[in-house]
Amino acid sequence: MPIFSFCFTASLYLTNKPMGSSFGRLFRVTTYGESHGEALGCVIENCPAGLTLTEADIQPDMDRRRPGQSRITTPRDEADRVKILSGTFEGKTIGAPISMAVFNENAREKDYSDIKDIFRPSHADYTYHARYGHRAWRGGGRSSARATIGIVAAGAVAKKILREKAGVEIVAYVSQIKDLKFTGDVDLGKITALREVIEANPVRTPDAVLAEKMTRLIQDTRQAGDSLGGIVECAAVGVPAGWGDPVFDRLDALIAHAMLAIPATKGIEIGSGFNAVSMTGKEHNDIFEMQNGKVTTRTNHSGGIQGGISNGMPITFRTAFKPTATISHEQPSVNERGENVMLKVKGRHDPCVLPRAVPIVEAMLALVLVDQFLIAKTAQYDSL
Amino acid sequence: MPIFSFCFTASLYLTNKPMGSSFGRLFRVTTYGESHGEALGCVIENCPAGLTLTEADIQPDMDRRRPGQSRITTPRDEADRVKILSGTFEGKTIGAPISMAVFNENAREKDYSDIKDIFRPSHADYTYHARYGHRAWRGGGRSSARATIGIVAAGAVAKKILREKAGVEIVAYVSQIKDLKFTGDVDLGKITALREVIEANPVRTPDAVLAEKMTRLIQDTRQAGDSLGGIVECAAVGVPAGWGDPVFDRLDALIAHAMLAIPATKGIEIGSGFNAVSMTGKEHNDIFEMQNGKVTTRTNHSGGIQGGISNGMPITFRTAFKPTATISHEQPSVNERGENVMLKVKGRHDPCVLPRAVPIVEAMLALVLVDQFLIAKTAQYDSL
Amino acid sequence: MPIFSFCFTASLYLTNKPMGSSFGRLFRVTTYGESHGEALGCVIENCPAGLTLTEADIQPDMDRRRPGQSRITTPRDEADRVKILSGTFEGKTIGAPISMAVFNENAREKDYSDIKDIFRPSHADYTYHARYGHRAWRGGGRSSARATIGIVAAGAVAKKILREKAGVEIVAYVSQIKDLKFTGDVDLGKITALREVIEANPVRTPDAVLAEKMTRLIQDTRQAGDSLGGIVECAAVGVPAGWGDPVFDRLDALIAHAMLAIPATKGIEIGSGFNAVSMTGKEHNDIFEMQNGKVTTRTNHSGGIQGGISNGMPITFRTAFKPTATISHEQPSVNERGENVMLKVKGRHDPCVLPRAVPIVEAMLALVLVDQFLIAKTAQYDSL
Amino acid sequence: MPIFSFCFTASLYLTNKPMGSSFGRLFRVTTYGESHGEALGCVIENCPAGLTLTEADIQPDMDRRRPGQSRITTPRDEADRVKILSGTFEGKTIGAPISMAVFNENAREKDYSDIKDIFRPSHADYTYHARYGHRAWRGGGRSSARATIGIVAAGAVAKKILREKAGVEIVAYVSQIKDLKFTGDVDLGKITALREVIEANPVRTPDAVLAEKMTRLIQDTRQAGDSLGGIVECAAVGVPAGWGDPVFDRLDALIAHAMLAIPATKGIEIGSGFNAVSMTGKEHNDIFEMQNGKVTTRTNHSGGIQGGISNGMPITFRTAFKPTATISHEQPSVNERGENVMLKVKGRHDPCVLPRAVPIVEAMLALVLVDQFLIAKTAQYDSL
Repeated sequence: MPIFSFCFTASLYLTNKPMGSSFGRLFRVTTYGESHGEALGCVIENCPAGLTLTEADIQPDMDRRRPGQSRITTPRDEADRVKILSGTFEGKTIGAPISMAVFNENAREKDYSDIKDIFRPSHADYTYHARYGHRAWRGGGRSSARATIGIVAAGAVAKKILREKAGVEIVAYVSQIKDLKFTGDVDLGKITALREVIEANPVRTPDAVLAEKMTRLIQDTRQAGDSLGGIVECAAVGVPAGWGDPVFDRLDALIAHAMLAIPATKGIEIGSGFNAVSMTGKEHNDIFEMQNGKVTTRTNHSGGIQGGISNGMPITFRTAFKPTATISHEQPSVNERGENVMLKVKGRHDPCVLPRAVPIVEAMLALVLVDQFLIAKTAQYDSL
Repeated sequence: MPIFSFCFTASLYLTNKPMGSSFGRLFRVTTYGESHGEALGCVIENCPAGLTLTEADIQPDMDRRRPGQSRITTPRDEADRVKILSGTFEGKTIGAPISMAVFNENAREKDYSDIKDIFRPSHADYTYHARYGHRAWRGGGRSSARATIGIVAAGAVAKKILREKAGVEIVAYVSQIKDLKFTGDVDLGKITALREVIEANPVRTPDAVLAEKMTRLIQDTRQAGDSLGGIVECAAVGVPAGWGDPVFDRLDALIAHAMLAIPATKGIEIGSGFNAVSMTGKEHNDIFEMQNGKVTTRTNHSGGIQGGISNGMPITFRTAFKPTATISHEQPSVNERGENVMLKVKGRHDPCVLPRAVPIVEAMLALVLVDQFLIAKTAQYDSL
Repeated sequence: MPIFSFCFTASLYLTNKPMGSSFGRLFRVTTYGESHGEALGCVIENCPAGLTLTEADIQPDMDRRRPGQSRITTPRDEADRVKILSGTFEGKTIGAPISMAVFNENAREKDYSDIKDIFRPSHADYTYHARYGHRAWRGGGRSSARATIGIVAAGAVAKKILREKAGVEIVAYVSQIKDLKFTGDVDLGKITALREVIEANPVRTPDAVLAEKMTRLIQDTRQAGDSLGGIVECAAVGVPAGWGDPVFDRLDALIAHAMLAIPATKGIEIGSGFNAVSMTGKEHNDIFEMQNGKVTTRTNHSGGIQGGISNGMPITFRTAFKPTATISHEQPSVNERGENVMLKVKGRHDPCVLPRAVPIVEAMLALVLVDQFLIAKTAQYDSL
Repeated sequence: MPIFSFCFTASLYLTNKPMGSSFGRLFRVTTYGESHGEALGCVIENCPAGLTLTEADIQPDMDRRRPGQSRITTPRDEADRVKILSGTFEGKTIGAPISMAVFNENAREKDYSDIKDIFRPSHADYTYHARYGHRAWRGGGRSSARATIGIVAAGAVAKKILREKAGVEIVAYVSQIKDLKFTGDVDLGKITALREVIEANPVRTPDAVLAEKMTRLIQDTRQAGDSLGGIVECAAVGVPAGWGDPVFDRLDALIAHAMLAIPATKGIEIGSGFNAVSMTGKEHNDIFEMQNGKVTTRTNHSGGIQGGISNGMPITFRTAFKPTATISHEQPSVNERGENVMLKVKGRHDPCVLPRAVPIVEAMLALVLVDQFLIAKTAQYDSL
């Protein structure tokens, strides 16, 4: 029987491998918290002073992310009430670090105890163990989707700055669940109406009929002990030309980084994406033309980004999510002692993370854009 | 006649918008240089001491990247001889910053002077101008593909460390040009043989017959004043389980960041990528099983990364490149004065960047992995 | 009547000037909280996993820092109970961010309301206002000494790692209050005994008789509505040779950065410090000699650091603190409208911050050293 | 005979301990180069575009730093001609990284070969060896004062920006050599005149008579095979109120970091510095008063910085330098094999580094201030 060399031996282990819990350059977010610990949250550094901000600005996105919100998400029910601990005074930000916390309420440790030494296939169990020599098996520890609470809280602040100060609106929606595809067009000129359609169904897709089919597919799949993946499309309108560093920190590179930092993602494409491959330069080039004294492009294959810098057109991209790794159907696997075993997960899980991923995609994009906004807005001046 | 508000006025302009010319955390690379300036290169900080290193280790990748290397690249001929200025002593690294430079030789400014105030469609001209209030029109300045010289030089050092010290081999190849797809399998167990096949043809695709078709397509397209895109596939074998920070700096997020930092890229997918969307969890999950006392997976839909951390299987991903934006065919566009104009670019350009992108993809992946290697290798200890 | 151009206009102001609330590279601490907000605390990233850690490890240093601890500190009485919100599981760290909070209890806003538009001389009031366009007048906001709570909490964790894993002990004490100087020698070979002497008196000086004199001087000075400064000496024993980056991030540079980041500090000297100026090289050079097979130096003018890197001898330095800026004696000043006014501060303040500065000096040094420990311990290996 | 455990074994050693060769946040400088390698220099990232810049702007400070400039410095004669490799176009910066290099000319390896295995007392030899497991004995490698070439080159660019765009002037001078003290006052209102006096003598002290005494003392000390230390005073005038981050990255903390990053420094004090200790709050507080509609202070004990943020008054500080460690007088020491030996250094060394340290102090301050200028200038806006 092979014994793992990295077998967990608490008395010996001390590792300081980093976790990479911070994101952003100026508007810097550090998240903390495990799925079943005391609290989860984040600290935002360098948020501008003078912004009106209370918990009411943040809670709506927490509600869009929280489990138990609809019949197609995990039944684990958490209110996820956010609390601001610092950084505001009389309802306004003061430029100081904004600390926010959500205290855990509905932790059920027994859900996980019987799988605590088995590695769930395609889950972070094994790799987390390989890296840190242990794993926080209570719901996945830091690798739990619950750790995205801090992201969504910080993203809500970022979206508010972008909306109120930069005129930038972000909207995301589910465009595909397995083979059910949204093939219509969304009108990015009418964001409010678009959001209403999207948020009117539990899948968050811009077509009510399609939403019903997707809902049924998700429910049937859950029934079968299986899970589903899909695609989230996202757009930001109102981004002016000039955001993004043209060498390593290109705007598209930052967005790709942000998207693949979301659990369960497998790919990202900007604008034309992988379809660009089948086009020639003549077909793909976005012809510039003047419209109302403003440089615009006839097409938007660029997805609003050229040479790593925004060009003033809507930023558009698509993120692929794999089917949830945790399924209730029995699967073969191995355990921490290196034995081949059969695994049957009980627990409460999402058969499809897409509906809850929508606010996370928006939040991550907002974190990228608010950083660029603060840098770009402030770093240009015509005389010194 | 609309006048641009950002119209270039040298006497007024001073902007300090960042360029993002550094990459990496421990093995940190800062690149410098413009397409037609004095020199281009990079400085590598925190390269381990004790590594044998001379220019001969770096030049081969420079040659794979350089223009004029074959009949399907730009005829601009540059030897691109690299010179090490610091950081080694008696042929070994000493842990000090490694400064490397390539001095420009074959600059032809006139190639660009007649388009210096017109924005080439889907190129960085307009966005660069919008960001910095000017543009270095001599061949694109910092947004030129020539600025990847520093990347390839640093990547060669990173690949050497990975190969000699970590047992990690990286290989990339062109898997698609427009609709010509490589549909075979590559044997990642025989990297040397694979590299030989790939480097034996100017396209760098692992199939000689396909390479011939692709070459003809590229030549015909150039003749037509048009351009082509494609896909570069890349794999790293030998990466142990445990590389990657599981929150924001996931290994797949870092790779996505790295790939979309390469000019002309439009998308990236890891492992199953966008195909994961059409699978269910049961189909997609990579079942763990013990093989020779080692945890392995039956399939590799994960592309070697689970929960943002490597799992010991080969890391595999695909990067989409759009067709080259600069084409010789006439196109409408606008100029810096906001006038609609017709543009006809002469110059010397690649009709398809894919063959030269192969070493750049490898280099960017190497920069990501060597950083993780240094962090992971060093940050674990079983007793303090 | 001159009107300030930066006069506070809440509706207009939005500034994103950074606050610099993070410290450290690997063991990275982000503090948050204002003097009279909801809570203050910190998040520690990349603390090694496997360390036993509960609130009981942190509270003692919180008690040494807290106001109201003795008759010579501010009478503002705060229990300052620290709470760990994340990063531990069953009493051990798991490598995830450690979030800690102290909830405010004894806030008295009225103490500050009558000076809210007057700039206290030599305080941060004016400069904070000049930078951010507003000031958090409730006890100084982020510039309050209360913001050092997060530092001391993080420092307690750092000291525990250094003590248990690196064999490094840190001890600080007051060596001078005004002209009352400690002129004896401390025995760094008997740290426990030394700490007992220091902590046995409220001034934290290593001489009980001197402590009594200092106490009386502080009490008399408070009576007179005045304040006092002094010097804190600090030593770290057990630091091995080899910590510190020899170019910009020298160990002495990092310590200097850390010390001058403590409110009210005016200077720092390492080892011989300013006295080195009057010596010649022959006198000042620390002669190397072998002792028990170990390289040591006969003298320690270097203060344990040579060329920016530790040499294995005790690290010693002295930090100068100015007299507390806030005094109850009446002083002329100006207000936010640019008027010359007379200022009389009531409030509750320390007549001398030195006794409470001792744990802060220790904490800041610990943050510097634990970072170097993690980097140095892990980054050396003799074979790869 | 004790054998060092860290004894240099080239074939085994690979260490990736960082060197910390970068400084700054926005205006980020990375230096490279060893004392006797091919070239030394730096890369500046994020220097604003639109600044006129040629080698002629940089060479004067290189000349003030270079060896062989006068009869009281080392006779090693180096022209130290600086060359700009990138980042400018037609004599103006373009916002791209500025790469600068000085090629070595007068390397004499034999100077060092006979001491290559002996640790010079109070030098970086031993600690560098302890950290990296080897040392670049050719003139000290990265720990050589020659590595400050990149600092002075970058500082010259920073000073130009500060002077031309921010109205900030920096001036430093030697105020003490051993016990010879400059006790006069300098008129910071007449910077140009002050600089003329300082630069008119080889010591760079603001008193010609004192300079003559200092010169003789330096020459006599060299004759005796000994060395001297001293103090450099430095001031920046024109810094507006509002520069500096009030928590960890206080302006005084950054300056302290910068100064102690200069080789041979032992201490730094801001404004009143260590003298503040002997004053009471009433005496030390800088009383605010309006002057010409501007907030000023009657005294400047604060040295222009309050609460870590500039207050508009001149920034003043003093940096202590120890006597040069390398002396020609014979000294006991130990070698790499752990043997007690006698050391007699021949070589060419400065008997007193102070005269050449003046431009380095100015450069390091300029790097701190230009970063704050770019951040502060750009990060405030009254409407978004």
